[in-house]
Amino acid sequence: MLVRLMYASRASEALPDGLVESIVQQARRSNPELGVTGVLCHGGEVFLQVLEGGREPVNALYNRIVCDRRHRQVTLLQYEEILERRFGGWTMGQVNLAKVNSSTLLKYSERALIDPYALPGRISAALTEELIVTASIVGRC
Amino acid sequence: MLVRLMYASRASEALPDGLVESIVQQARRSNPELGVTGVLCHGGEVFLQVLEGGREPVNALYNRIVCDRRHRQVTLLQYEEILERRFGGWTMGQVNLAKVNSSTLLKYSERALIDPYALPGRISAALTEELIVTASIVGRC
Amino acid sequence: MLVRLMYASRASEALPDGLVESIVQQARRSNPELGVTGVLCHGGEVFLQVLEGGREPVNALYNRIVCDRRHRQVTLLQYEEILERRFGGWTMGQVNLAKVNSSTLLKYSERALIDPYALPGRISAALTEELIVTASIVGRC
Amino acid sequence: MLVRLMYASRASEALPDGLVESIVQQARRSNPELGVTGVLCHGGEVFLQVLEGGREPVNALYNRIVCDRRHRQVTLLQYEEILERRFGGWTMGQVNLAKVNSSTLLKYSERALIDPYALPGRISAALTEELIVTASIVGRC
Amino acid sequence: MLVRLMYASRASEALPDGLVESIVQQARRSNPELGVTGVLCHGGEVFLQVLEGGREPVNALYNRIVCDRRHRQVTLLQYEEILERRFGGWTMGQVNLAKVNSSTLLKYSERALIDPYALPGRISAALTEELIVTASIVGRC
Amino acid sequence: MLVRLMYASRASEALPDGLVESIVQQARRSNPELGVTGVLCHGGEVFLQVLEGGREPVNALYNRIVCDRRHRQVTLLQYEEILERRFGGWTMGQVNLAKVNSSTLLKYSERALIDPYALPGRISAALTEELIVTASIVGRC
Amino acid sequence: MLVRLMYASRASEALPDGLVESIVQQARRSNPELGVTGVLCHGGEVFLQVLEGGREPVNALYNRIVCDRRHRQVTLLQYEEILERRFGGWTMGQVNLAKVNSSTLLKYSERALIDPYALPGRISAALTEELIVTASIVGRC
Amino acid sequence: MLVRLMYASRASEALPDGLVESIVQQARRSNPELGVTGVLCHGGEVFLQVLEGGREPVNALYNRIVCDRRHRQVTLLQYEEILERRFGGWTMGQVNLAKVNSSTLLKYSERALIDPYALPGRISAALTEELIVTASIVGRC
Amino acid sequence: MLVRLMYASRASEALPDGLVESIVQQARRSNPELGVTGVLCHGGEVFLQVLEGGREPVNALYNRIVCDRRHRQVTLLQYEEILERRFGGWTMGQVNLAKVNSSTLLKYSERALIDPYALPGRISAALTEELIVTASIVGRC
Amino acid sequence: MLVRLMYASRASEALPDGLVESIVQQARRSNPELGVTGVLCHGGEVFLQVLEGGREPVNALYNRIVCDRRHRQVTLLQYEEILERRFGGWTMGQVNLAKVNSSTLLKYSERALIDPYALPGRISAALTEELIVTASIVGRC
Repeated sequence: MLVRLMYASRASEALPDGLVESIVQQARRSNPELGVTGVLCHGGEVFLQVLEGGREPVNALYNRIVCDRRHRQVTLLQYEEILERRFGGWTMGQVNLAKVNSSTLLKYSERALIDPYALPGRISAALTEELIVTASIVGRC
Repeated sequence: MLVRLMYASRASEALPDGLVESIVQQARRSNPELGVTGVLCHGGEVFLQVLEGGREPVNALYNRIVCDRRHRQVTLLQYEEILERRFGGWTMGQVNLAKVNSSTLLKYSERALIDPYALPGRISAALTEELIVTASIVGRC
Repeated sequence: MLVRLMYASRASEALPDGLVESIVQQARRSNPELGVTGVLCHGGEVFLQVLEGGREPVNALYNRIVCDRRHRQVTLLQYEEILERRFGGWTMGQVNLAKVNSSTLLKYSERALIDPYALPGRISAALTEELIVTASIVGRC
Repeated sequence: MLVRLMYASRASEALPDGLVESIVQQARRSNPELGVTGVLCHGGEVFLQVLEGGREPVNALYNRIVCDRRHRQVTLLQYEEILERRFGGWTMGQVNLAKVNSSTLLKYSERALIDPYALPGRISAALTEELIVTASIVGRC
Repeated sequence: MLVRLMYASRASEALPDGLVESIVQQARRSNPELGVTGVLCHGGEVFLQVLEGGREPVNALYNRIVCDRRHRQVTLLQYEEILERRFGGWTMGQVNLAKVNSSTLLKYSERALIDPYALPGRISAALTEELIVTASIVGRC
Repeated sequence: MLVRLMYASRASEALPDGLVESIVQQARRSNPELGVTGVLCHGGEVFLQVLEGGREPVNALYNRIVCDRRHRQVTLLQYEEILERRFGGWTMGQVNLAKVNSSTLLKYSERALIDPYALPGRISAALTEELIVTASIVGRC
Repeated sequence: MLVRLMYASRASEALPDGLVESIVQQARRSNPELGVTGVLCHGGEVFLQVLEGGREPVNALYNRIVCDRRHRQVTLLQYEEILERRFGGWTMGQVNLAKVNSSTLLKYSERALIDPYALPGRISAALTEELIVTASIVGRC
Repeated sequence: MLVRLMYASRASEALPDGLVESIVQQARRSNPELGVTGVLCHGGEVFLQVLEGGREPVNALYNRIVCDRRHRQVTLLQYEEILERRFGGWTMGQVNLAKVNSSTLLKYSERALIDPYALPGRISAALTEELIVTASIVGRC
Repeated sequence: MLVRLMYASRASEALPDGLVESIVQQARRSNPELGVTGVLCHGGEVFLQVLEGGREPVNALYNRIVCDRRHRQVTLLQYEEILERRFGGWTMGQVNLAKVNSSTLLKYSERALIDPYALPGRISAALTEELIVTASIVGRC
Repeated sequence: MLVRLMYASRASEALPDGLVESIVQQARRSNPELGVTGVLCHGGEVFLQVLEGGREPVNALYNRIVCDRRHRQVTLLQYEEILERRFGGWTMGQVNLAKVNSSTLLKYSERALIDPYALPGRISAALTEELIVTASIVGRC
């Protein structure tokens, strides 16, 4: 059974340089064996991540994140059983929200920055769809 | 929470030359910080304005207009909570209805001029959509 | 409030040469001020006319036609409140049904001629739509 | 082909006592032979009438009313080809709007009185439906 | 043209005893002449009010409230052109939210109290519908 | 923003007598203050729980469960932003699946016992709906 | 494959007394073996008949009627492949249209008599449905 | 009233050479005056014909075919009142099914030949639509 | 994953007395352990059976029937993945079609007997639904 | 009556080289006479096959497969009565799943290989549709 899970979290401390990149690298190493695909958006200390794959490995991965001290306020935004993946082309795509066109952000948000904690899940999902359409995701496998 | 608000008003007195332009300029200065976008249509003494943005700043701005003595008969035409902006590309676009193709106006109106006080809100909204499609809005940011 | 009204009538007597043209000319003179647009189809002694505009001027115009002795059997075919005009581009377009492709007429009718008195209003309306699509209406303003 | 036609008109002069009743009586004498049924609502000088029946006799009857000097501002509100009658039980039902419950009127109108000239046709139609439901129509045949 | 407008506001200062009641009384005196109906819900310093009636008088009334110093943070929650009233039976109904069954409030809210500033307009609207169904509105006219 | 979250888990060890009851009692003490409502179904070592409430407190509670060593294989089954609660009447209702009519279980499952790990989330959700309808939930508040 | 066929015909000559009854009797003798059910409505010289059953026997029966000199103007009104019969309870029900309530007839017709040659098939079908509802069909088997 | 009628029949005897062509020629002579259009498909001894036109002439023509000894097993496949013709471009188009691409036939049939007696009418209709799309009909007028 | 499978078969030889009953008895012994439920309809030598349960045990059971020499012409009629069972109340219900009201059979069939080999699967399914509604199934568990 | 049947099976023993090809060759010899078309996908020891054609020959063919000792765990995935074939262009197309793009497989599956025993039938069906679109099927006739 395939599922798609989207969550937000905050880094517990200021992010050291290169951390995001190293998180993405690790995901790219371990996800293929788990059959997990997705995208990681980050902006400031906030993460917005989509995970797609089997219900069991996606939950196992999410549970590790929830209990990981480096994340605070881990919060589910959307969760669905799906018929097909949307991010199947990325072992773990990556988006630096600070580099996204501000009008793309403004389209869905009160100000030109994304605060997933203040948005309904379907708005954050609409943004991630737009990121595909506007080719803003790097790291296609 | 994003909202879109459309209202009509009449100038309390004859509009001095350049007034509309100075109103638009001021909107362009203050709206970005409020995250408000939209379009101002004017024809004769009548204004038809669309405001998009967070529920709080849009209401604060509308309340200032309602209590501003230079406006008479301030009247809501439409108000909706929205998932995405339609006028996100304009800090405050501007349309001089006197310069719009008369067949565009006639399509939605009994005569070739727009009287939002005599029209249901959805007709005025259809007109503003047509103004986007026909590239009649100036001042794209 | 915009309405669209379609009716059929018969000329009380044989149509003198040039009469249709002079009717159309008069409509083109008086309709702009009334904000009325539409199309007049004629074939033999039968008229099929569409009038679009404000509810009041369209009814006033229709009532004059009803009481005009030169028309017999004035019969409503369709009447709707509309959001936008379909014949906004014609002060009073004109179609000589005798010159329309017979397969266009046959598509909607038992024989290759149109008798609006024998057809449901929606069939006559479908024919007038086809006349737009096939560019059969002369006199675009 | 059955049609339903609803129109509004104003009496040209003040209505003499008993006039409405005599109009209704006459309708009841002549309508059965025409196969016409319907309802006449009157309030002050305003009439709101629904006529149902064959397209030809309903139009003939409407045209007589349009050309009758005792009516002013005869205005179509709705006209449809129908599969079945809604007022088949009344040769000509009658409603004195002054006697209708004011909350029934207020439900569809800005004030507790009906001005069909200010309402879209579908609102006036909804009111006549409500008059059936609330058993406000007298003269069932 | 009938509209329904729902807004929230806060009292500028602590509400003196009997104030709500006197506001409602005044509404009941002036609204009939304006053709305005509705309901006023209050809980603590927060007001949630629905106004129904003609577009012009409802806007005029709302504009007076917006500019009235006793109200703060006047914020639109919903605004629609409607075919029929929902609160036609109340010149100005009244609900003390503090007396509403807490499970009614909890059904739509995170805690057993209503904060319209934190809710989408359609949730507040669903609550007012439930208040009709549960006969929680006093002052039916 | 209200959400509903349904998950399954397994007890890490055999459940001591009275443990379920004590879990439910604790939930009933702490949930009201959090505004959380729901139902806990248990059968053998498997738990199936529904949590309703604000997005933040429901996620905080779920995260505690995920990191609690007494639960294994904590797995999301459904998660939605909702307009109204379905279990608003239970601070924490309770169902012993072993006591549910076997034909109720068989309706949704291959055998007369529920294994949420083998079922799509919407089937488990349909079962919890049926538990409301069949009055199988104890502990209504 | 089940079909339903409705047709109209006229008696070639004045109907002798008892003829309709004898036609119905014969249908009741031969139809059971053919698996044909239906209803025969007659009014004056006009017949309106519905036949339900297998495609082959219904067509065979219809073809005999078409070539039978006692019928003139045999005309199909409706023909459909169906999933279930509507007149399964009548080997051949019978309705004397002259005895049907005139308001039942008027509901679907311009005058209080049914002329299937002047009506679209779906109107005649609606009438036969009404005959079931109003228990106007005699001879239920 | 326009109708479309589709039927199947079998030739009573082996078809002499040129017979189909002569039938089509005769149809082309007599149909224009009747306002009938359509298509005749033949394959082996089986005919599949579509007739479009007024209800009266189409029925008259069908009745002649039913009573014509050269046809056996005349069987209705579909019959509908239509708003517009589909075969208006053919006085009587012609298709030799033996020359149609076998994959076109196989798409709708168990074997690569068409037996309308074994197919629901809508399948035969879908085939005739495909014959238009694949330009398999000869004799366009 | 729950599925519902409906098939028809014929007995290879004349059915000895009591055979059907013994088949049903055996099904009732083995099905509970397999979690299979359903209904067996028999009429003459024809069987029509519905099986509900997990995809694996239903297929295993069907495969045994297919390869069982006592059945001929085993033919699938319908097969679907389902969210809930319809025959959950019968380990193996039983219907003797010879005892079913003939008008129930006639409703779905050309003659008053059911030949599932001649019917689309959805018609046979509609019949089994009707057997539930008319309480024609014996052996509820 | 056309049907489409999709099933999965496992080879009873390791597949000798060339076996799949010889199975396909045999299908291509015998299917045309049966009017059966379809596609055979194989990956490792698992087969996923779609059969389209008449209900009788498709069932006869499926029954032979079910009773064939070289297949184990023959399991229906989907079965429908259809109006037109989807695989009409292949007597028996062939897909080696090992050669299909892994992202095509991953789109519908937890890992980049297809296990039809673990998937709902509609997912396997979606995959076969994608195989048409991506031109992955060899052996078009």
